[in-house]
Amino acid sequence: MELKNHPILKAARGEETDYTPVWIMRQAGRYSERYRKIREKAGSFMNLCRNPELAAEVTLIPIEEIGVDAAILFSDILVPVEKMGIKVEFVEGKGPVLTPPVRNFRDVEVLKVPDPKEDLSYVLETIRIIKERLVDRPLIGFSGAPFTLASYILEGGSSKNYIAAKSVMWNDKELWDSLMTKLSETVTEYLSAQIEAGADLVQIFDSWMGVLSREDYEKYAFPYTKRIVNELKKRHPETPIIHFGVNAQHLLEVNNRLRVDVIGLDWKTEIPFALERIDKSIQGNLDPVALFADERTIEEKVRKILKEGLKARGHIFNLGHGILPQTDPKKARFLVETVHRISRELRG
Amino acid sequence: MELKNHPILKAARGEETDYTPVWIMRQAGRYSERYRKIREKAGSFMNLCRNPELAAEVTLIPIEEIGVDAAILFSDILVPVEKMGIKVEFVEGKGPVLTPPVRNFRDVEVLKVPDPKEDLSYVLETIRIIKERLVDRPLIGFSGAPFTLASYILEGGSSKNYIAAKSVMWNDKELWDSLMTKLSETVTEYLSAQIEAGADLVQIFDSWMGVLSREDYEKYAFPYTKRIVNELKKRHPETPIIHFGVNAQHLLEVNNRLRVDVIGLDWKTEIPFALERIDKSIQGNLDPVALFADERTIEEKVRKILKEGLKARGHIFNLGHGILPQTDPKKARFLVETVHRISRELRG
Repeated sequence: MELKNHPILKAARGEETDYTPVWIMRQAGRYSERYRKIREKAGSFMNLCRNPELAAEVTLIPIEEIGVDAAILFSDILVPVEKMGIKVEFVEGKGPVLTPPVRNFRDVEVLKVPDPKEDLSYVLETIRIIKERLVDRPLIGFSGAPFTLASYILEGGSSKNYIAAKSVMWNDKELWDSLMTKLSETVTEYLSAQIEAGADLVQIFDSWMGVLSREDYEKYAFPYTKRIVNELKKRHPETPIIHFGVNAQHLLEVNNRLRVDVIGLDWKTEIPFALERIDKSIQGNLDPVALFADERTIEEKVRKILKEGLKARGHIFNLGHGILPQTDPKKARFLVETVHRISRELRG
Repeated sequence: MELKNHPILKAARGEETDYTPVWIMRQAGRYSERYRKIREKAGSFMNLCRNPELAAEVTLIPIEEIGVDAAILFSDILVPVEKMGIKVEFVEGKGPVLTPPVRNFRDVEVLKVPDPKEDLSYVLETIRIIKERLVDRPLIGFSGAPFTLASYILEGGSSKNYIAAKSVMWNDKELWDSLMTKLSETVTEYLSAQIEAGADLVQIFDSWMGVLSREDYEKYAFPYTKRIVNELKKRHPETPIIHFGVNAQHLLEVNNRLRVDVIGLDWKTEIPFALERIDKSIQGNLDPVALFADERTIEEKVRKILKEGLKARGHIFNLGHGILPQTDPKKARFLVETVHRISRELRG
């Protein structure tokens, strides 16, 4: 099979497949013991991201361990942010801490749009190593979207309420625009370089867009994501783009105007509801906590999602958010097998 | 004006009002300096809840300080949980910690359904004191809903992913049912006693219901809330009930089947979207962070919400979630005045 005819790429393009392909957000992560050992060897999470050999190894673990249909580059959405000139540290139990805080126009002015070939060459090298070893399945590249990255930058880390980010957005529209513009350029170049290095499709994580009302999203976040997508489609028309965020049911109609191929749904978004609002392929959407349920419950939930997914233009199965660190890898493997088995049965 | 003709009660019943009434979730809270001083005097948050004189004083602060149209009892949704036999402590920076954890049938069996007149007499006394002092505006009583309370009990506190709660829900349906049944009885008796003590309307906070898929909500949470609402409507048919939770757009149609009078909307739920799905009065729904925006932005957002709210059976203005501790009280006061002014103009 030529790689371009792989079910994930076909589903993204809206072509028929024999079964529903599946991958899992954060599949190369903490729930795997092999991952934890390699991370320990690397010393820190960011060190692991910066080490192409180890990052490639980690990327490939879930292919073997749980049998997913695609690999996703092991990295973090803050990797390019660091290269803009912001220090990123991962503090145990607290998450990422970004310094210095961006407060005014001058703080944005000094931020750089990284040149991926120079500043992020280790990411591109990781992709090349993975592509040498992974011949039969696609590799997914990714980036955060401008709004989600701007939130981290303005809040100085994770946030519960996004007061700092929204305050700039509403009260200092020029500062907001200059930061978002710089982030759009950064994301465009970064994703473009990933595709050139070998990524077969890319996912844009606008994880936190759902904290915005539709009105604010349309005004302050959507235009920047749109700019990125349009530019990527111009440069790489053949490469499918997935767009994803949580608690974003109210943004479906807006996001359907993006020239992306796939829209990722969280587990609260009913598939029939989504299909009334979007005509893209869909990705999702099992509750990540469902992997703590017994196998019968998992099967029931998977069957329902697969059935509903048959009505979509194309369907890539996934969790509705990242897999949780406490998950038993056996359950993840069971999920993948169940998706393959039931979807073949339903399509057969 | 007779209290029963107060705009909040009229809006709840779907009758015409001259202006849109407004109150604010968590209005008697940390953003007020007077509140912080009284809390300090009380020693701890729970001590304050347990002291009728001080709790009444705190309840009445926002009436004077920001001019809201109703008071809401100062208390916490975990107050009745404590009287079920679970220790509740508020740990600075961590939130509530509940011990011992409920793990099996025996742990549920020993939980008591509190008799409000005996076990929660201080709450009823607080209500009586407030009602003596507050003659021209309604007092709102409240309780958590069974799902939200069960989450706290099973998780032992706040949770990010609800693994413990959902695991019991899916994997041990009998344990789940026995806990939820006990919680339903507790909430029914508690709200009923609040109404008898003088609460003019009540709000059921099912704050976290939005983490459930519609399917799971309908199966495992909704039936218990429905039971409470039906019993309350039987005992106190004249008392309006408000039902509220965040990220719950996918649950609107289901909740419209509750015999409640008002459905509270978070700021991500577009009002026109909600009105296609529910025929109750609505409450909401300004982004709490909008109070950090400049006055012009606040006004624009308020105007939009008020205009859309005119199409509802009735509209009580509120934030889409609790007011944040960092909020400037002047902005809260500005919000209330703006809601009154613009809604009179729109209705005039």
